[in-house]
Amino acid sequence: MTTNDLSQLRDKIDEVNLQILELLNKRGEIVQEIGHVKEKQGIVRFDPVRERQSLDLIIENHDGPFELSTVQHIFKEIFKASLELQKDNHKKALLV
Amino acid sequence: MTTNDLSQLRDKIDEVNLQILELLNKRGEIVQEIGHVKEKQGIVRFDPVRERQSLDLIIENHDGPFELSTVQHIFKEIFKASLELQKDNHKKALLV
Repeated sequence: MTTNDLSQLRDKIDEVNLQILELLNKRGEIVQEIGHVKEKQGIVRFDPVRERQSLDLIIENHDGPFELSTVQHIFKEIFKASLELQKDNHKKALLV
Repeated sequence: MTTNDLSQLRDKIDEVNLQILELLNKRGEIVQEIGHVKEKQGIVRFDPVRERQSLDLIIENHDGPFELSTVQHIFKEIFKASLELQKDNHKKALLV
């Protein structure tokens, strides 16, 4: 292994980062759509049962090098950010 | 929009979650490889300049619904977890 290998591995990391970014934003868009549907139906935005189901599916499918607790922590941050996104949209809708 | 739409949107979210999970774990594997290279070369594990560069590339490419600060926060959590992964491997290597 040389410094060149290190550089190649770092390029791979950057590539994966951008793929994760793309998926995060795609996820954000779907979450916004869900927010609109819930708003129209008068459903409360946060659904702990649904969040638990999502997390369970992630746990079932996890087989990577990260600790399960780490993966759960990262996804909980993503869930929290998504909920904030719905709240922001709701505020904006009220201001229109 | 009906409850059925909501269910379809949730399925899409689950699909994206699993894609993010796959990428996270792929990223974890590359990070482990980087840890091995650094170990052999006697380079310190944490490189703030490199982390800044990674984050800058993410910022440049961000164009989704999330606030930039949110995206940065999520990636910093991923970076932190990756560093922990390298530390764990180092500890395990010392124990062998």
